[in-house]
Amino acid sequence: MPATMRAAVLRAPKDLVIEERPVPVPGPGQVLVRVEAVGICGSDVHYYEHGRIGDFVVRTPMVLGHEPSGTVVARGPGAGFHPVGRRVSLEPGIPCARCTQCRTGRYNLCPDVSFYATPPVDGALCEYVAVDEDFAHPVPDSLSADAAALLEPLSVGISACRKARISPGSRVLVTGAGPIGLIAAQTARAFGAAEVMVTDIAPHRLDLARELGATHTVDARTTRISGTGFEPDVLLECSGAPAAADEAIRAVGRAGQVILIGMGGDTIPLPLAHVQNFEIEVTGTFRYANTWPTAVSLAASAEVELDRLVTHRHRLGDTERALTAGALDRTAIKTVVRPQEN
Amino acid sequence: MPATMRAAVLRAPKDLVIEERPVPVPGPGQVLVRVEAVGICGSDVHYYEHGRIGDFVVRTPMVLGHEPSGTVVARGPGAGFHPVGRRVSLEPGIPCARCTQCRTGRYNLCPDVSFYATPPVDGALCEYVAVDEDFAHPVPDSLSADAAALLEPLSVGISACRKARISPGSRVLVTGAGPIGLIAAQTARAFGAAEVMVTDIAPHRLDLARELGATHTVDARTTRISGTGFEPDVLLECSGAPAAADEAIRAVGRAGQVILIGMGGDTIPLPLAHVQNFEIEVTGTFRYANTWPTAVSLAASAEVELDRLVTHRHRLGDTERALTAGALDRTAIKTVVRPQEN
Amino acid sequence: MPATMRAAVLRAPKDLVIEERPVPVPGPGQVLVRVEAVGICGSDVHYYEHGRIGDFVVRTPMVLGHEPSGTVVARGPGAGFHPVGRRVSLEPGIPCARCTQCRTGRYNLCPDVSFYATPPVDGALCEYVAVDEDFAHPVPDSLSADAAALLEPLSVGISACRKARISPGSRVLVTGAGPIGLIAAQTARAFGAAEVMVTDIAPHRLDLARELGATHTVDARTTRISGTGFEPDVLLECSGAPAAADEAIRAVGRAGQVILIGMGGDTIPLPLAHVQNFEIEVTGTFRYANTWPTAVSLAASAEVELDRLVTHRHRLGDTERALTAGALDRTAIKTVVRPQEN
Amino acid sequence: MPATMRAAVLRAPKDLVIEERPVPVPGPGQVLVRVEAVGICGSDVHYYEHGRIGDFVVRTPMVLGHEPSGTVVARGPGAGFHPVGRRVSLEPGIPCARCTQCRTGRYNLCPDVSFYATPPVDGALCEYVAVDEDFAHPVPDSLSADAAALLEPLSVGISACRKARISPGSRVLVTGAGPIGLIAAQTARAFGAAEVMVTDIAPHRLDLARELGATHTVDARTTRISGTGFEPDVLLECSGAPAAADEAIRAVGRAGQVILIGMGGDTIPLPLAHVQNFEIEVTGTFRYANTWPTAVSLAASAEVELDRLVTHRHRLGDTERALTAGALDRTAIKTVVRPQEN
Repeated sequence: MPATMRAAVLRAPKDLVIEERPVPVPGPGQVLVRVEAVGICGSDVHYYEHGRIGDFVVRTPMVLGHEPSGTVVARGPGAGFHPVGRRVSLEPGIPCARCTQCRTGRYNLCPDVSFYATPPVDGALCEYVAVDEDFAHPVPDSLSADAAALLEPLSVGISACRKARISPGSRVLVTGAGPIGLIAAQTARAFGAAEVMVTDIAPHRLDLARELGATHTVDARTTRISGTGFEPDVLLECSGAPAAADEAIRAVGRAGQVILIGMGGDTIPLPLAHVQNFEIEVTGTFRYANTWPTAVSLAASAEVELDRLVTHRHRLGDTERALTAGALDRTAIKTVVRPQEN
Repeated sequence: MPATMRAAVLRAPKDLVIEERPVPVPGPGQVLVRVEAVGICGSDVHYYEHGRIGDFVVRTPMVLGHEPSGTVVARGPGAGFHPVGRRVSLEPGIPCARCTQCRTGRYNLCPDVSFYATPPVDGALCEYVAVDEDFAHPVPDSLSADAAALLEPLSVGISACRKARISPGSRVLVTGAGPIGLIAAQTARAFGAAEVMVTDIAPHRLDLARELGATHTVDARTTRISGTGFEPDVLLECSGAPAAADEAIRAVGRAGQVILIGMGGDTIPLPLAHVQNFEIEVTGTFRYANTWPTAVSLAASAEVELDRLVTHRHRLGDTERALTAGALDRTAIKTVVRPQEN
Repeated sequence: MPATMRAAVLRAPKDLVIEERPVPVPGPGQVLVRVEAVGICGSDVHYYEHGRIGDFVVRTPMVLGHEPSGTVVARGPGAGFHPVGRRVSLEPGIPCARCTQCRTGRYNLCPDVSFYATPPVDGALCEYVAVDEDFAHPVPDSLSADAAALLEPLSVGISACRKARISPGSRVLVTGAGPIGLIAAQTARAFGAAEVMVTDIAPHRLDLARELGATHTVDARTTRISGTGFEPDVLLECSGAPAAADEAIRAVGRAGQVILIGMGGDTIPLPLAHVQNFEIEVTGTFRYANTWPTAVSLAASAEVELDRLVTHRHRLGDTERALTAGALDRTAIKTVVRPQEN
Repeated sequence: MPATMRAAVLRAPKDLVIEERPVPVPGPGQVLVRVEAVGICGSDVHYYEHGRIGDFVVRTPMVLGHEPSGTVVARGPGAGFHPVGRRVSLEPGIPCARCTQCRTGRYNLCPDVSFYATPPVDGALCEYVAVDEDFAHPVPDSLSADAAALLEPLSVGISACRKARISPGSRVLVTGAGPIGLIAAQTARAFGAAEVMVTDIAPHRLDLARELGATHTVDARTTRISGTGFEPDVLLECSGAPAAADEAIRAVGRAGQVILIGMGGDTIPLPLAHVQNFEIEVTGTFRYANTWPTAVSLAASAEVELDRLVTHRHRLGDTERALTAGALDRTAIKTVVRPQEN
């Protein structure tokens, strides 16, 4: 094992450098993972551009990245679950395991979680990470390193579909065909949804949505949902645009479920009378709990295609380009950084 | 049986008259009920003042009132469930029993429901009504006619507490101590809530809340919820005030439940980040389904005290005064009209 | 419309005749359906052989058959939903729509249901039936008449998978690969189950199970479930054999779900300590509620293949042969009667 | 702190001695608790008499007792939650916090739990125990040491009532009026049950059940449940007698819930047709998860009276008498050992 490694460190807004740092030493119950792929998430881009997300402020230099996959290369004291050489996908948050949220199965809501690339915790855009062995999940060889990394956003989709109780026969509306929307649409199909309508303003994203299983697509620039006659049982709101959310919620049928996944602003307008008269249930997702085995299963069976989403791949040294890919190339969907490539 | 009866008919905003109308003839499966008490609801007052509620417009003269109790005095063809003389509380909406909502147990969401005093259906502020026998619910003699009428708002409280899954140990915040808030607070206690905090701007309402079982009260004019340190699992929003709702939602703890009961405006601001980060579930109540037997049980056992809420009683001839009681007398909580009194 | 039609009438155990009966006249809200296909169910065979099922005794001659599909040929007064000529699948039970079970969405448990071929109600093994239009469900042209008939057993599978809360990632054990088991296995896959193991004692049924999507099969004559290392989250017990049920329940993992679908005997042994120590939830299915639209969707998308199950087809005049097909031909899976063929 | 303490050690069936053992030293995150009261449970008696419960065999000497309360007297490294002097009730099982069961909120099903007085883990019938601070729950001064100990069986009742989804209006049947049955009946009332029927063969237990809130009692020696006309929504089976369980399950109404709490034998007969035709849900309880705060609330508010159940109190030196109290004195309900009394 080398003594040092390279890491993509955010020092301030738009100030990202590749630093040499010590390779971490796995502690008790931890494994050391050689990082093969790290998905770039909108939150990484947001930290890069603004140095903060809401109350989370990057005050000291922080490694970005929270969607890693890799290979176990060493084990810390007492770590016996994974053999060296096993390929793994990493769950990026380690909860306290003691609080009420953890004990009731909602460890994603643990107030004391340590989560990659959420200040002040370093992320995984580097060559090696040490991680609690319980949060490294085995992946089959059939899964690419990119797909193994993207089990993280797939977990968001699974969490949303579980909350929405999607099952065979469900009619689902997905607003926004970015990476999360495209994953959510596929996941809804895997949960049995009979119809999945996807809306976006970019035609190439709608094309991809159809290729990946959406039964209907709507160009939001020209068509309103109310004009389609589609009355969803479930809305998976992935745009984060308040006006889109408002319009979409008003389209949801009686006793429907609304899952607010897209982030955007402090408040959104909630159509009160519609929510009351139709007894619509509205909630949000915050990360995920107990999703990885299901994510592995959906990706391995190709019920959810993840490699299809990856439009850009970069070396670790090009992380800054990776973070700006979406802004520069309108055809970008999902970018992955490959820390082992040179 | 007399051939005609008196009825309180709304002809236009602030134009209510007592008309002589034919006593209805009970149809197949119906019973004729002599109305003893009718609770006055905020929606009656709203129709009286504005002639409409949202999309529901009073276009032809309509009898008001949808919280009736009374006594069975005759039975239509095939009606065999209730003996003549039985005291009953009436469920004011008759659903179609055929649609998807009805078949899945959510008959309150039936799009074809016929509901008292919702245009163009006549209500129960009159001396006699004919009603489907299945929607007349027996009440024990220990229950007053007023309390039997108020099983309707109690049903709203039951519906809300069920949706919120209140059970022993729950901490509940009730915003607004009008009739619905005071009922919701008591119902929450009957569901086992360990702590119930009630907020309002009227001290006498807060006093009554405490007498009826609230464990904490907050004067919203002087104290913010965030200042109390109380972190509820459940919010029963009964004020209908957007700013109060926003503040209250922000106080709700992780994985908490928000039930929007109070009506007010087309939209309210939803604190998106809080709803997402805490995975709060927000929904509304629209009427009720399958609540009456439970309402009878809670009222008969005095777990929920309904008579205590009645501050004003009027004869049918004074319905207009009954509809304006709240505006004229700040100490008013709930008004009941007694159609059989002269 | 002809005045009379042929019907397969059971007069006593093993005494079935084809009788000439009047074509029914559709009542208010009913449609008249020309019956194209009727699936033969184990209960039809049981009535044929024993003249009873438990407390249900055939005391007067009764038409058998409760899995019909057909075409709307006439409409009764007030029936406006289906155009004449529409192909439909019939839900065989008409609940009262008034009782507690009906109002709470469990109309399959209605004590006053009128159900085809459950004494003394006549079934659908005849040329025409009149049925409440709400219980005739439209089917697309892509669905064969046989498949439209088999939406009834598919509804059993849907009901079971819903109760078991099967979703992506679930591991499911199906004991018994008769028509219901083969449908349940496919339905479990459609609900997202990652692994579905099917057990039976007939190799050709296990072969078919694999072709239809089972990921594992077990020959119960030679292999015990405990020997396979498979620990299911869900057991769909379709064998009705007490010993098989007992063994299978003991294989279910912690917090697992057991759905007892197969019928057999008054009691089965319940492994108490296992149910307690693993907090396993055990329940049964009785018919179905609100399943037809989902059944249409699953069959039309070929997620569940129904035509593949039909091994024998008979004319109405050969109903007695249809009822004994399973006993005579060990390769039989599902038999369908075609009342319009001669 | 003394160096040694007395402990009630079971060496073999009916061979219990009071041994001098070292006072434990609290490890990281642990507190040392001076034990004030320990409830005697049927499982303690069973280990005493048979040296085993099912697969759990006492192979080496083991301290009995798993229902302790006491006072924090010292803190281990890093333990910062409880001040010294705080009175606490101890949750007797420490789960691994890592496995699937723990992560999904069902830590009671953790296969690696360390549970007091379950071989080979020592229990709490001694003067001091060291315990993870997270599993020591504060109790108010209004709660006696005995009641604080009995929060353990109360947790069983809470777990059962949660599983049964008891809420206002529920009709509940409790079979068996031992300590668990008497607690379950009270807990059902606290969850809002409108009617609670308790059955037993001992009149004095039925008398106590009525005093504690049962609305009906039935002497099982002379009256069958079916003869009472009572159709429960929920059965809390606390007798462990297979015949009683069978009879009681047959009394449960449509869509009813059966919770098997009482232990007894490897299998019980399950009335299959009734479970299927009525879609009854049957499950068991195994210990509890996330119940203590609710238990404290119910006991502190006297909604569940625990001190009333304690009929016998013994010093630690009389543990053997405590374990045989029930057999010798038919009026015994619950026995508590007080390790600090001499």
